[in-house]
Amino acid sequence: MTSAGPGRPRSQQPSRPGATARDEILDAAAELFTTQGFATTSTRSIAEAVGIRQSSLYHHFKTKDDILEHLLEGTVLAGLEFARAVAALPPAEGEAAGRLHAVALYDGTQLCSARWNLGILYHLPEARSGRFARFLADRQELRNLYRELGADMPPAGTAATWQSSPGDLAFRLVESLINLRADGMANPESPLQAADAGLILCGLAAELPAIREQGAALIARLG
Amino acid sequence: MTSAGPGRPRSQQPSRPGATARDEILDAAAELFTTQGFATTSTRSIAEAVGIRQSSLYHHFKTKDDILEHLLEGTVLAGLEFARAVAALPPAEGEAAGRLHAVALYDGTQLCSARWNLGILYHLPEARSGRFARFLADRQELRNLYRELGADMPPAGTAATWQSSPGDLAFRLVESLINLRADGMANPESPLQAADAGLILCGLAAELPAIREQGAALIARLG
Repeated sequence: MTSAGPGRPRSQQPSRPGATARDEILDAAAELFTTQGFATTSTRSIAEAVGIRQSSLYHHFKTKDDILEHLLEGTVLAGLEFARAVAALPPAEGEAAGRLHAVALYDGTQLCSARWNLGILYHLPEARSGRFARFLADRQELRNLYRELGADMPPAGTAATWQSSPGDLAFRLVESLINLRADGMANPESPLQAADAGLILCGLAAELPAIREQGAALIARLG
Repeated sequence: MTSAGPGRPRSQQPSRPGATARDEILDAAAELFTTQGFATTSTRSIAEAVGIRQSSLYHHFKTKDDILEHLLEGTVLAGLEFARAVAALPPAEGEAAGRLHAVALYDGTQLCSARWNLGILYHLPEARSGRFARFLADRQELRNLYRELGADMPPAGTAATWQSSPGDLAFRLVESLINLRADGMANPESPLQAADAGLILCGLAAELPAIREQGAALIARLG
């Protein structure tokens, strides 16, 4: 009975995506947090889902909050890095719309293609604590980059009757992909539709084909 | 020590909004679910927050799920009833846009003015079970009414390059008010901006002043 204890023996072939035990822990936690709930998932059940001992899990992550922090960061980091790269480009006449489109499409594609829909955890009271300050700051920086790109947009002819930040609405449309996915209604076109909608709100519906091309070129170059 | 037991004695003056103990229970639960989390809130802590015994709480609600069901229903019911009333109106030439605007503005105002931002609980795994089928069906019916109103819209000149459901995007923009509120960024203009954005996505930016007037008249009449 010396092998008795929590957790099944780890199989030779990892059962989850990820090259390392750490990746498998993150994948199992993401599944459990999004399907069972964060508060109701224990580190023990995560370890069991991976097939390792709880003590092995603690070797990688000290607490459940550490795992959540890593997963939340993962939802914004690629989009944020791409948005930073776009925002750092030198000004280019007539490219503002293409830049916002590229950021929204890239970010929305990340949210829709991640294996687990972790954005549903954004508004958990547990995820709002100071413990997750880095994630909250990164998400805020991403929102601000959308805003800055939106502010660079040529003023729409119709905007006089409608005061709002187009970049902020684009950010909200992209994040609403999380809700769409949670409702089982996202499809491969959804990120493009969200990016398009952000530009239509800037009064640029007629220019969409050209804007899409500009955006796609930026993603090919920087993504 | 005969008065000892869970819960403080109920004060003469109710400390929470609501005419009845039942309303106070709902208010306390809404506060705890949105600020502490659903899974981590016990019926005992709800009873304590109201200042009643746990046994008195069970007189009103058998389980914590019953309370959550009632609260989730409360987030969609007023908007759904208004949308049903609008959808039941006889067809009227040129009023489709005003109808969608009215539904979005009315629904968004409910989401923003409720005392607690309960929409953040929509995507909890716990709220996705068959236990909440009625809420899920009501929310789906509301989404479908948005879609039908959006489908009645005159085709936008620019829609050829952009295939999507304007009613569905309006619904998502309105629900994104929940996220905006969770981020502390909603303001009194936010519901109107969300409703406006839905119409701009239909290519109707230039007609917004007239659409707003139509929508306001519908809210005055049916709201």
